Amino acid sequence: MTQDLPPSPNDADEDGRNERHRARMARKKTIIDDRIAQAQRDCGVIVVTTGNGKGKSSSGFGMVIRAMGHGMKTGVVQFIKGAIPTGEEKFLRRFPEECEFHVMGEGYTWETQDRSRDIAKAQAAWEQARRMLRDPSFGLVLFDELNIALKLGYLDVDAVVADLRARPGMQHVVITGRGAPQALIDAANTVTDMTPVKHAFAQGIRAQNGVEM
Amino acid sequence: MTQDLPPSPNDADEDGRNERHRARMARKKTIIDDRIAQAQRDCGVIVVTTGNGKGKSSSGFGMVIRAMGHGMKTGVVQFIKGAIPTGEEKFLRRFPEECEFHVMGEGYTWETQDRSRDIAKAQAAWEQARRMLRDPSFGLVLFDELNIALKLGYLDVDAVVADLRARPGMQHVVITGRGAPQALIDAANTVTDMTPVKHAFAQGIRAQNGVEM
Repeated sequence: MTQDLPPSPNDADEDGRNERHRARMARKKTIIDDRIAQAQRDCGVIVVTTGNGKGKSSSGFGMVIRAMGHGMKTGVVQFIKGAIPTGEEKFLRRFPEECEFHVMGEGYTWETQDRSRDIAKAQAAWEQARRMLRDPSFGLVLFDELNIALKLGYLDVDAVVADLRARPGMQHVVITGRGAPQALIDAANTVTDMTPVKHAFAQGIRAQNGVEM
Repeated sequence: MTQDLPPSPNDADEDGRNERHRARMARKKTIIDDRIAQAQRDCGVIVVTTGNGKGKSSSGFGMVIRAMGHGMKTGVVQFIKGAIPTGEEKFLRRFPEECEFHVMGEGYTWETQDRSRDIAKAQAAWEQARRMLRDPSFGLVLFDELNIALKLGYLDVDAVVADLRARPGMQHVVITGRGAPQALIDAANTVTDMTPVKHAFAQGIRAQNGVEM
């Protein structure tokens, strides 16, 4: 037979802590519910990830599979990478009906060292991107490393922004790369600066499959 | 018959610009090649994405598909989210052999308002995570929103770090969520702070499928 013991001081402490937690979370819920009530508009958004830290492209690819999970058709144009096939490319090429994947770059700018050729490649890549921006069957498109092509002056930022603004109303666009120009930040809905705190590379660890590529 | 015209001043400008680009990129290549030569170690890395900006979880899911593209087995444990099925969950559950997916949370802390229950759920989630950290068949594991569970004191950070350190040598771990504790940052190889510049929510646009969930 079990006895009903009187609550110990520890139990009372724990009860108080739980009650304070409940009250704090109830207040937080009121604030968040209120904010949610004020944000009720649905529309296609432009998301820009920039900065020098790790996570810009991988965040873009995470959004691609989120969209695929909701049954949306997706498109990817990679502007700068491309010399080495990456894990994301190998994976997403398995789903040609769900994700149209283009690698237009021939590698990093310091590898090609050929500005005219890089410009021609960037312009060809933007033609693919524009085609997607005119096709409402694409629910979400990712233009990976576009910011680099803009920063290097390979594409005109005003022309790019005009094409983005003319896209179908519910289409989402994700744009990645260091050095996003101000005109693109102004046109975007959500912008994150990926700020490096530390990086494995500085510890003598090279780029790892699954993490950096 | 075509004539060989003398180069115009514009052509000369363009040639000079191309040559300066080539020389700059050649210098950059030397620096980068040198850095690459100094980073030759292969090992499992701990990647932490934290901060208040958008892109933490999506970056983690991007690394999951990168790893899947390289034929690695992956694991996901979601610590806090879970009340609403997300795009990433719907998508990744299509590949049970390639990605073991666990959603352990019952929703955001301000929705449950029940601290004891949240703690029990977080501890059960960490048991799943520990099992993966002892199994070398997992090439990359993602512990989504683990930082929140640590910040709220639902799990002991020293115990979590000890389990991370004891994992197989080539296993990669990605940990996401606001407020990563210093002990976890110290233990990590790569840490990025996702710093918000602007967010669609503040423009009255609610969370969009494919972007936020």
